[in-house]
Amino acid sequence: MTASTEARGLSSLMMDDYPLRIDVLLARAERLFPKVQVASRGPDRTVRYTDYGSVVRRARTLASALLSAGIHRGDRVGTLMWNHSGHLEAYLGVPTSGAVLHTLNLRLPPEDLAYVINHGRDRWILVDDVLLPILEKVRDRIHPERVVVVPFSGAPVPSGLESYEELLSRHAPAAPVPGRDERDGAGLCYTSGTTGRPKGVLYSHRSVVLHCFALAIGLNLRQRDVVMPVVPMFHVNAWGFPYALVMEGARQVLPGPHLDAVSLLDLMEREQVTFAAGVPSLWLGMVEALEKEPHRWKLSPELRMVIGGAAVPESMIRRFDRLKIQVIQGYGLTETSPVLTLAVPTAEMDAWPDDRRYAARARAGLPVPFVEVRIRGDRGELPWDGTSVGELEARGPWIARSYDDEADLSGKWTEDGWFRTGDVATIDPEGFVAIVDRVKDLVKSGGEWISSVALENALVAHPSVREAAIVARPDPKWGERPVAFVVLKEGAHATDEELRDLLAGRFPKWWLPDEYRVVAALPKTSTGKVSKRTLRDDLGKLAGAPPDR
Amino acid sequence: MTASTEARGLSSLMMDDYPLRIDVLLARAERLFPKVQVASRGPDRTVRYTDYGSVVRRARTLASALLSAGIHRGDRVGTLMWNHSGHLEAYLGVPTSGAVLHTLNLRLPPEDLAYVINHGRDRWILVDDVLLPILEKVRDRIHPERVVVVPFSGAPVPSGLESYEELLSRHAPAAPVPGRDERDGAGLCYTSGTTGRPKGVLYSHRSVVLHCFALAIGLNLRQRDVVMPVVPMFHVNAWGFPYALVMEGARQVLPGPHLDAVSLLDLMEREQVTFAAGVPSLWLGMVEALEKEPHRWKLSPELRMVIGGAAVPESMIRRFDRLKIQVIQGYGLTETSPVLTLAVPTAEMDAWPDDRRYAARARAGLPVPFVEVRIRGDRGELPWDGTSVGELEARGPWIARSYDDEADLSGKWTEDGWFRTGDVATIDPEGFVAIVDRVKDLVKSGGEWISSVALENALVAHPSVREAAIVARPDPKWGERPVAFVVLKEGAHATDEELRDLLAGRFPKWWLPDEYRVVAALPKTSTGKVSKRTLRDDLGKLAGAPPDR
Repeated sequence: MTASTEARGLSSLMMDDYPLRIDVLLARAERLFPKVQVASRGPDRTVRYTDYGSVVRRARTLASALLSAGIHRGDRVGTLMWNHSGHLEAYLGVPTSGAVLHTLNLRLPPEDLAYVINHGRDRWILVDDVLLPILEKVRDRIHPERVVVVPFSGAPVPSGLESYEELLSRHAPAAPVPGRDERDGAGLCYTSGTTGRPKGVLYSHRSVVLHCFALAIGLNLRQRDVVMPVVPMFHVNAWGFPYALVMEGARQVLPGPHLDAVSLLDLMEREQVTFAAGVPSLWLGMVEALEKEPHRWKLSPELRMVIGGAAVPESMIRRFDRLKIQVIQGYGLTETSPVLTLAVPTAEMDAWPDDRRYAARARAGLPVPFVEVRIRGDRGELPWDGTSVGELEARGPWIARSYDDEADLSGKWTEDGWFRTGDVATIDPEGFVAIVDRVKDLVKSGGEWISSVALENALVAHPSVREAAIVARPDPKWGERPVAFVVLKEGAHATDEELRDLLAGRFPKWWLPDEYRVVAALPKTSTGKVSKRTLRDDLGKLAGAPPDR
Repeated sequence: MTASTEARGLSSLMMDDYPLRIDVLLARAERLFPKVQVASRGPDRTVRYTDYGSVVRRARTLASALLSAGIHRGDRVGTLMWNHSGHLEAYLGVPTSGAVLHTLNLRLPPEDLAYVINHGRDRWILVDDVLLPILEKVRDRIHPERVVVVPFSGAPVPSGLESYEELLSRHAPAAPVPGRDERDGAGLCYTSGTTGRPKGVLYSHRSVVLHCFALAIGLNLRQRDVVMPVVPMFHVNAWGFPYALVMEGARQVLPGPHLDAVSLLDLMEREQVTFAAGVPSLWLGMVEALEKEPHRWKLSPELRMVIGGAAVPESMIRRFDRLKIQVIQGYGLTETSPVLTLAVPTAEMDAWPDDRRYAARARAGLPVPFVEVRIRGDRGELPWDGTSVGELEARGPWIARSYDDEADLSGKWTEDGWFRTGDVATIDPEGFVAIVDRVKDLVKSGGEWISSVALENALVAHPSVREAAIVARPDPKWGERPVAFVVLKEGAHATDEELRDLLAGRFPKWWLPDEYRVVAALPKTSTGKVSKRTLRDDLGKLAGAPPDR
């Protein structure tokens, strides 16, 4: 009696073993939302419609096929695919089989693509037919047991290759396998590797599900939203949208390979998209197209957009506001599933002057529930005063605690178990995080830091400037000095003096770039971010076109 | 190498040990929302304001006091309190100390109150000064180590009694205690015991947190909402609102003891409440007051309300719609934390005719994410066809797997681990659950079931009828026959023939009640629901006033 009395309350009497697994999301959509539409635009620009009922049935069939071919719990299945319903089938079917979905970034240079396939030990690869040329380039360096071709283009699969449709036709949908652990691996995604080799992050069912709760809460996603994830499904699980939308039973609009502004706007109008998600470079083209032809597209009046993957300039938020489109900035990394913060203004900010509120919205934002953040400098944790600058660290249930199969942790985790983001940030008293820079992109001049992000944001506020990037050039006297790369708007002009005057009004003199280089375009990484590594490497011999597309 | 290869993916490399605990919510509000207001209306009707910063500091201080007094992990601390900021302090402080918060229903009959305090083995009881008379009635039957009096009225605590404020003044806020398990007990709530003794449900930190995610997602709660939980904090954690609002950082308006329609409307106008939650009997008074004086209150144009705890008649939803107030029906039980389903119409229902959509909104609704439901009859699981009637069963991470310290499970769990709700339901093809009746409230006539809920909803659609209840009277020939108890609106009249004609048009002849009894009021349970047990017991000698208030 005493023992039982003491034990009471120590362990609850709830169904705490009910697992937070992706299979539960899949079963939910199957039961409650079988008729809800999933739209995919193909390589030929036609939009094909299916529904969650069919997607889940086919996902279960894929799980069957994997299991009967001897794919075991924890084995990796790679996908080299665009955003379309077939990829969604893999998102649901692979983890349901117990295997791990390894999404392959189709924009990786061949050597990195081969590396991640081999390092991830992918047993199977599912590949869109239109992406076969990319796989061909690494075919002799990789060793998957099977390559299954998804006829995304609608054409028959070339003879000699295994067809996804034929594979599905030979199997029946798998029944749910009960009793699996929520901590099992579910997804694998490699960092884009701006420093060193790409590193694998192994998401668990639990982390995917909890992240999807946080995403839905943070963005107020609703079942009645029509959501277009432009962010690629090969990029950090498309920020978790596919899973969150399956959970909500919301319509998905998957844009396939045509990602230029006009193609996206056409699709958004056609499907009356209420929520879109993507990186700033995409939305820059979109805001320009909308400003140029304000009456061309009849978009949903409810349209909201989340933008992440790189800093969103305040000017872009203001421009979208003028078009009555609400922009929410988000921030996170591959290692953090990705969402850490969202810049949704709080009720208290309604009373702020416009300028102050816009400045807040141009920050990375408030941590979502269950994400803890802190900033640390050389002498420990720093105050949330909006001015102290330190490296941003985070912890929470959807943040990695190590890389996959990497003995060298490269110092990414602190001794007390926080993840070091590699970003330098301030946190203001309201809890809004502002990313000052990547640690490695800071310019260190005369022993003091210069924020490249702050200078870039100021430059793009100039009416003639389309894009800007600041990088450090080694300097014998100061250590490093900033150089500005500037892309002008079509037909626009700006002199070095104009740009310098713009910055001189807002920054100390020693922050001002030593040189302004007007270029046709900035090099981009495989995830669409400006590749500062390329700019630094190529300083003095910049090419006009992105090197790795 | 092989072993490590096989092991890869079996356990993820995320921070899966980061616990889903209430302490994390508390720390979040402390860090991000210290200035967000919490309003409480006292017994003297004055509204007092505090903020999350102060609430959390005091909650941590309470945790300190508990720990230094030798309260251990899993020990129970009872609260006998109204909805106000002091109760919120206990909601946060007690679980943060590692103890279990046992919310005591102040409307329980004394013998039940004494029973749950003793059965729960409450070591401490926190009691509002204005509720001391209730505790006095059971004082000689209970054995708490300490009774701490919260001066909710603002008056000094009577001498000889321990004061909450004095207790707090002797301690400092407790630092977070790291490393505790998410499956630890956090809260204890007893069923209202319509059959037999009340039974304890022991919520875990994990179940509370996951339920709070589901509530926020299902109701689309936002940081900018101003939320008034009218549902008592002694009733299933006020449906989880206090925790969800702390997580969101949303303003809370806690109405204290004045729960009549006019008092609530005054408070809703004053605080510009955008979201309110409570039982139908309360909202009935509210809709009447608003219809009577449509221009008296300037409520927030964004006002939404969730109503649960008993079936919401379709007519009430329509009446609120005409007042531009959106009503969402919710359904759940003490054993289910409570939310199982919410009747938020899906996008697909926009295309339905009004009548069909209203009928859907008058159902219990769609299961929230991670709640699974099924209906079972004598011959197993039944189809989701909207007509098959069986007992509703559920499972999910915030559903109890047994009662606290009860050897006798009273058959509430199935052999395969589902919870039996005791409610009889249909599920339509869209996944909307409709509660037909409590199993024990069904009327069985001539071997066939008659739904009391269906008859009641039809009766309250009559312009003269305010409330209605159908109960079974034993019948020598048919087994049972239905009897209708009807409360008429002020000054209204209705003959038996009129009521019979109303029903005759919609139900088979053998469903029609044998007798119509017009009464002044219906007896209510401690949670404000119609007490059918009392009606059945008293059939033939009904008193005008509720027996247990």
